[in-house]
Amino acid sequence: MSKIKAKALVVQGGGPTVVINQSLVGVILESRKYSEITKIYGAKHGVRGIINEDLVDLTDYSEDKLELVAKTPSSALGSVRDKPDEEYCKKMFNVMEKHDIHYFFFIGGNDGAAVCDIVNREAKKVNYELRVIHVPKTIDNDLVGTDHCPGFGSAAKFVASAFAGANADNSALHGVYIGVTMGRHAGFLTAASVLARQSEEDGPHLVYTPEKVFNIHKFVHDVKNVYEKYDRCVVAVSEGVADETGMPIAVKLVKQIERDAHGNVQLAGTGALGDLLADEIRSKTEIKRVRADTLGYLQRSFLGCVSETDAKEAREVGVQAIKFAVSGDVDGSVAIKRVSDYAVEYELIDLTEVAGKTKEMPEEFFAGDNMVSEEFVKYARPLVGELPVVEKLEAPMVEKI
Amino acid sequence: MSKIKAKALVVQGGGPTVVINQSLVGVILESRKYSEITKIYGAKHGVRGIINEDLVDLTDYSEDKLELVAKTPSSALGSVRDKPDEEYCKKMFNVMEKHDIHYFFFIGGNDGAAVCDIVNREAKKVNYELRVIHVPKTIDNDLVGTDHCPGFGSAAKFVASAFAGANADNSALHGVYIGVTMGRHAGFLTAASVLARQSEEDGPHLVYTPEKVFNIHKFVHDVKNVYEKYDRCVVAVSEGVADETGMPIAVKLVKQIERDAHGNVQLAGTGALGDLLADEIRSKTEIKRVRADTLGYLQRSFLGCVSETDAKEAREVGVQAIKFAVSGDVDGSVAIKRVSDYAVEYELIDLTEVAGKTKEMPEEFFAGDNMVSEEFVKYARPLVGELPVVEKLEAPMVEKI
Repeated sequence: MSKIKAKALVVQGGGPTVVINQSLVGVILESRKYSEITKIYGAKHGVRGIINEDLVDLTDYSEDKLELVAKTPSSALGSVRDKPDEEYCKKMFNVMEKHDIHYFFFIGGNDGAAVCDIVNREAKKVNYELRVIHVPKTIDNDLVGTDHCPGFGSAAKFVASAFAGANADNSALHGVYIGVTMGRHAGFLTAASVLARQSEEDGPHLVYTPEKVFNIHKFVHDVKNVYEKYDRCVVAVSEGVADETGMPIAVKLVKQIERDAHGNVQLAGTGALGDLLADEIRSKTEIKRVRADTLGYLQRSFLGCVSETDAKEAREVGVQAIKFAVSGDVDGSVAIKRVSDYAVEYELIDLTEVAGKTKEMPEEFFAGDNMVSEEFVKYARPLVGELPVVEKLEAPMVEKI
Repeated sequence: MSKIKAKALVVQGGGPTVVINQSLVGVILESRKYSEITKIYGAKHGVRGIINEDLVDLTDYSEDKLELVAKTPSSALGSVRDKPDEEYCKKMFNVMEKHDIHYFFFIGGNDGAAVCDIVNREAKKVNYELRVIHVPKTIDNDLVGTDHCPGFGSAAKFVASAFAGANADNSALHGVYIGVTMGRHAGFLTAASVLARQSEEDGPHLVYTPEKVFNIHKFVHDVKNVYEKYDRCVVAVSEGVADETGMPIAVKLVKQIERDAHGNVQLAGTGALGDLLADEIRSKTEIKRVRADTLGYLQRSFLGCVSETDAKEAREVGVQAIKFAVSGDVDGSVAIKRVSDYAVEYELIDLTEVAGKTKEMPEEFFAGDNMVSEEFVKYARPLVGELPVVEKLEAPMVEKI
């Protein structure tokens, strides 16, 4: 059967982004254009909402209201981090079958793609007719097979804006400022801290990501060097920086290690790493004023910090998901392909290509082990859209009398 | 002598805000209108720039560039937290006299007003003719004698936007979210966390400020109650919350207590309080998902989160400072008077009224010991300007089969 006429179900999973509802609204509004999709339902709190039969009917929901939902941060349907097994999938198909649901759209990250892959394989195994389309989102920007991920551009704008402000603050009141950003395995978001820099003198002066081994002695040495040069230093550090054995520096500190169903260790939601690094600078150098911030959940949910490019693309991956789903007997993950500087196209790639995998920053995005390259800036700059003004006051010095 | 014709000097002191340069530009541009002010200089890094004779000439600086500087966060001239004594003042007057400076504008908070008061008294003592005008700024909103402080509205917008996002995030993935905000003695900024709430169900559900005694057992009890009701809980806590003896909870934790020249204990720049409170919830309740963020320096310097009302008023206090200074033999602090809902007027009040004092939230701004009142919202809402859209998805449930 290459064409099916049935209901569609959309869910959101994993950590939210500020544009994840653009994708949701893209799916909902586009679904209304095709006779193949008889109704569009949403499940509350991800796949758990399916087994609980907590479904909402989005078929006739006001388009005006949806446009406002699209602009609101964080998964409007609610989210969950469940990883379905065979049994879980059977329960899902049971509910889906009762409601005549044969289109399944999952807006999620790597773990979301893994869920899609499991659901797809289990559906085939039990012969349940289901189009499974993964709609990408993640502020980490670490999905394989796509040029970049919806959600990243806005989070990157937040991080760039935070560091531009922190740099101005640190210029006014000298010292060392350490900002800890999200990112377990990939450094894209931490790297985005440089996107509002105007010159060498601007912070962040040092950028540490999980791709490079983090050595605490080297770190202190680096900070001292910068401080000696500029009488100040701004540092961006990924929460996931790890030592030479691959052990995250933050994990060494966390008393209770908490893991989610996908085996991910909880790194965010604690200021421990920033405090440790600040203490290290205080105790190993003569520098007195040392401050550390952990940017935390604001990176993925702060109201009002949205990249227009990101919002547009997040909408479009939702739209494309529907187009692909009604085009024939396909399953897959919607991917963004950069075709020029700057334009994109959308394609559908295999779920197995994306599922559970993590893309790290390529070597050309680095300039040594504590800074990112111009190549990275060229790659990431178009994704964050316009950034607010930063203008330095450079008035002539008055001659001393 | 009631009118003087001389140079003017402007400095910025203390922690920056995102609109502090509006005041600076207000002072500079307005000073150009009066023949009494022959030139306008700026001192780099506050009063220390005066004794070091690190002065810049702002008299002919491009107006277009100044307009961009005005939009840039954090003290463009640099800042310092020095508290001048008699000797320090003598050095300042010595430099001022050499440059024929007899107008002094200090953009700062309570400590800034204290500096102005010292400088003013020392100037009178040594018979140095000096107009001393304090131009108010502080994100803490804790200056006495003014309805509110430039810098607060934008910081309040940041905090409201952070909590609106955190609330949406917490709605999607349930649990307890604790956000620690700046504010040593006054709870205004923490209270601003409620400004984007649309209903009782929206977080923050609990707001703890330094004005009310913080009891850790009561805190756990409060969180449990909210969690039982909504299956989630969002909490806003001031960094300065203190126990019944007045001892800040955060200070109990900090190994190295750092004090600045004004005797202020360093509370920001550490995630310790948030982590302690999160640990307390984890260990004393059955709640598993507990997250804490410390909003940190982003509150006062984040690029692009500006209240238009705040920006306008920050500009105007700078303009008014000049107007008062050239009006006659006056010294004082520029204060904002609210004359209707919503309009303001400006007045000059005594430096001694403001110097080193802290205004706390009045009792009518509280609703019990863990929430703020509608009175507070009425007071603060006009100051933050427009907030971005938040729209909930409230689609009809599908009947279970």
